Amino acid sequence: MMTQNNIKNVHLYTNKELESITPLRNEKIPKVMTVAGSDSSGGAGIEADIKTITAHQCYAMTCIVTLTAQNTKGVTNVAKTTGEMVTSIFDENFSDIEIDSIKTGLLSDESIPALKNTIEKYNYKGILVVDPVMVSTSGYDFVSNKFLNLLIDTLAPYITLITPNLIEAKALVNTLSKKVQYDNNPLVHLEEMYAMCKKVHDLTGIKNILVKGGHQSWGYDKNLLTDVLYISQTDTYICFYSKMQISHNTHGTGCTLSSAIASNLASGLSMVNSIANGIVYVQKGIETAPSIGHGHGPLNHLQSFQQFNYESLINEEFELPFMKGDALEYLYDHTEIQNLWKEYTNHKFMKQVKNYQLSFDKFIDFVEQNIVYLVNYTRVILFMATKINNEEQFIVEADRLKTLSKEISKYKTMLKKIGYDDFKINSIKPNKVCQKYIDLLLSIAKDSGDYFDISISLTPCFYGYYIACLNATGKGQCDDLLKCELYDEWINQHISDWYKDACIEAEKGLNETFEKYCHSQTKLDRAIQIFKMFTSLEIEFLNYFL
Amino acid sequence: MMTQNNIKNVHLYTNKELESITPLRNEKIPKVMTVAGSDSSGGAGIEADIKTITAHQCYAMTCIVTLTAQNTKGVTNVAKTTGEMVTSIFDENFSDIEIDSIKTGLLSDESIPALKNTIEKYNYKGILVVDPVMVSTSGYDFVSNKFLNLLIDTLAPYITLITPNLIEAKALVNTLSKKVQYDNNPLVHLEEMYAMCKKVHDLTGIKNILVKGGHQSWGYDKNLLTDVLYISQTDTYICFYSKMQISHNTHGTGCTLSSAIASNLASGLSMVNSIANGIVYVQKGIETAPSIGHGHGPLNHLQSFQQFNYESLINEEFELPFMKGDALEYLYDHTEIQNLWKEYTNHKFMKQVKNYQLSFDKFIDFVEQNIVYLVNYTRVILFMATKINNEEQFIVEADRLKTLSKEISKYKTMLKKIGYDDFKINSIKPNKVCQKYIDLLLSIAKDSGDYFDISISLTPCFYGYYIACLNATGKGQCDDLLKCELYDEWINQHISDWYKDACIEAEKGLNETFEKYCHSQTKLDRAIQIFKMFTSLEIEFLNYFL
Repeated sequence: MMTQNNIKNVHLYTNKELESITPLRNEKIPKVMTVAGSDSSGGAGIEADIKTITAHQCYAMTCIVTLTAQNTKGVTNVAKTTGEMVTSIFDENFSDIEIDSIKTGLLSDESIPALKNTIEKYNYKGILVVDPVMVSTSGYDFVSNKFLNLLIDTLAPYITLITPNLIEAKALVNTLSKKVQYDNNPLVHLEEMYAMCKKVHDLTGIKNILVKGGHQSWGYDKNLLTDVLYISQTDTYICFYSKMQISHNTHGTGCTLSSAIASNLASGLSMVNSIANGIVYVQKGIETAPSIGHGHGPLNHLQSFQQFNYESLINEEFELPFMKGDALEYLYDHTEIQNLWKEYTNHKFMKQVKNYQLSFDKFIDFVEQNIVYLVNYTRVILFMATKINNEEQFIVEADRLKTLSKEISKYKTMLKKIGYDDFKINSIKPNKVCQKYIDLLLSIAKDSGDYFDISISLTPCFYGYYIACLNATGKGQCDDLLKCELYDEWINQHISDWYKDACIEAEKGLNETFEKYCHSQTKLDRAIQIFKMFTSLEIEFLNYFL
Repeated sequence: MMTQNNIKNVHLYTNKELESITPLRNEKIPKVMTVAGSDSSGGAGIEADIKTITAHQCYAMTCIVTLTAQNTKGVTNVAKTTGEMVTSIFDENFSDIEIDSIKTGLLSDESIPALKNTIEKYNYKGILVVDPVMVSTSGYDFVSNKFLNLLIDTLAPYITLITPNLIEAKALVNTLSKKVQYDNNPLVHLEEMYAMCKKVHDLTGIKNILVKGGHQSWGYDKNLLTDVLYISQTDTYICFYSKMQISHNTHGTGCTLSSAIASNLASGLSMVNSIANGIVYVQKGIETAPSIGHGHGPLNHLQSFQQFNYESLINEEFELPFMKGDALEYLYDHTEIQNLWKEYTNHKFMKQVKNYQLSFDKFIDFVEQNIVYLVNYTRVILFMATKINNEEQFIVEADRLKTLSKEISKYKTMLKKIGYDDFKINSIKPNKVCQKYIDLLLSIAKDSGDYFDISISLTPCFYGYYIACLNATGKGQCDDLLKCELYDEWINQHISDWYKDACIEAEKGLNETFEKYCHSQTKLDRAIQIFKMFTSLEIEFLNYFL
């Protein structure tokens, strides 16, 4: 029995501030294969899939099971790929590349068993999102009921998610249950959508069912589109509401949605977030569609996008797992971080500077790289400030900018003491570890991060130097007066009252940021991941100068 | 006779600061069709083409003339599309969508005449870039000499640019001249590359020839790759030098380069800039290639990129066409701008405020939108500041930030005088014209623009309000005390000594920016385009409130 308790709603259009969860840049790029037909005019099929997968920062691969000659007005010609060729393509793709996610669109009779055999042959355990395409937006009927039987009989056990629209869901139920359960009349109540999801699950055994409500407006609000997800594992129904848009630029929306979901799942997003972000991608694509062709035009695949945590709207009961004011301690004491933090804040580099053991060349090399780093740190602050809406906060950031400028010029003064001129200083290029650190900082600041993420990314550097310099004890011998002066200056700067006060201020800010922006486990996990990443990068950076 | 005077060199890796020329965002998205084979593993063929065209912010369309089953280790199976299907696809694409640029890669015997017939049937006058693919990086021989003959005989008159590598160029010359002019020995002198370009041109009549020097290192510098372009119209040779990279991730470089060039040409870049930026895209793609597959891996198509003006390196004789200090006057007096500028700086809005004729509702609506606008203006300043390397300049920007913050809070105070609270102020959303203006400002600030472009984009707003308020003369009647106060305050603010001084400072800054950053006609034309665009947007914005 389905109870109201099982039904949770996600309002995609919300005034609540959402948490950014665009996947952090990683050395491993997710590989997503689309098995579908080609739409030469570029708006649907594998063309739309490649564009979508690429826009989601994943690596697109294909198996083209049908060529179609089509445009925004309709399909005029179809050429099926032979089963032998399809098998060859699967073999080439699977034998060489580790695929994370597969999305299927328009399939052929031959490609269905070929895919099943491939999955078994290569023991594929990844994601499989099936869009059971029957009718294209341009009105071309692609498949029969026989085909639906074949699809489900062959692939059901491997399917992670199936994404029929209302018509396809009806056909699935009627075909598989061998009797007409649905006629052509529209469903009236939302509960009928839930029941439909459940029926598809019961008849197929597929774990997750997304029925796309499409153009039907439900009685209670004509301006919303409704898609319903059934997650069998938790026996939960989730409604995705989105704004109804009057547009004829809807060619390829089905392909695009399933590719976006397959990419999001491959990037590690949860089922709910993968679908919610996929829906938003399609919605924005329609909203900003270019005017192409004379019929149903394609949507805009070129949007720059950011992914958000819609799950936090469902799970509102989240509480931070630490006492108010203890954010920093929670992070550096976290089981995944504490050893790294210890290594960083007891780093030899600071000890060797304190004891004058570090060679002067290495120190100067460090100062050089630190200037490059600080200029980019300043850039990150600027990017962070672009997320602000509030003029008072702009003034705070302006002051931070000034502080950083002074810091940079202090380091430049150090170099000038040993004879550098402006030209030489301006020619300094980042080394490999510095470049890597900067790239990752900027990737969060520019692309994947929100104000919260960026704050976290800057914390290990700022706070860690203070602790590490405090922890650097002992006293060495130093004969070179200039060296003594520079080394002492550097250590003393990081344990000065001024720096300490700045750390206390920064910690206060960090705690406020947590209160204000961190409202879910997903977001907290992400903060841990970011803090850990930049603690590691600090160690790598400092190691370079030993 | 070829003389040294004809030969111009472009060093792609240069220390000179290059001008950004990423196409400005435009409502018309360039449409680029790739006619090629599919590479299922995603690294080459139409898959690489779609990724490249998409990364270049163009709309990708396809005609798949061959399916291949391949991966990073090689090709195992090929299935040609029938001539009839190819013709259908061309018909669908051409009859519905206005194509700007075509790129061909791997072609079939049937697709060549089909393309010719299509070009003639639809009277296609756009760009055609032909990559005469013979051998893939993975070693598969695709075409014969007979094929080259067919290609040239059929398509030559329509080709904008052909991009053979050394081997393909040799085969072209040997095949078309019906005698062996080149053996398998490598060319030794660069002049032989020039001569080869000329021979291809003489034998085919194709207007522009790019011979890709590929893996051969020329005697005089082993660390450079050399590509040579021959432009027949001006009888000029241009060398593109780029850094040699040792990498096995070179699968699909040829496809990627020709797609990038076809996209750049479609976006309005010149031949030299299209090629130079294409080469840089490929180079960066190799540099940042993900590790995919076990053979020749694909390059990274996902880079965020900015396009630069490499032509300015050739044409160094450029001089600004106005006297030092006259940048602003040059812009607003430009034939394309002067009428718009007059309209803007004599706008009724300012007059109606001055004379108290504007309805209070409209004025408040304006104040609301102006707050949203100023917050985004501040964001643009922040993005502009991220382009800075210099800590002294950071301080200048920090002061600007503070000034803007004060400006924003001044407008908020106005609203509070008529009873707005913070919640109501923070709920203000941009209207349609404001959103359009903001989107275009941010698209330059975040994506396509450099420091210079961003400065220009902000100039019409800042300076124009001063002039328009000065030009607003007359005196009206006002009974409502608060209205009088607010209207007077607004006008007086924009003609105050403080604002005037700020304008004088800004103009000085603008002139310095021109001296420092504008070194070519291309860049100057772009500045004119930007200034014009934002002058129009100001008019549109102000019209909204009449």
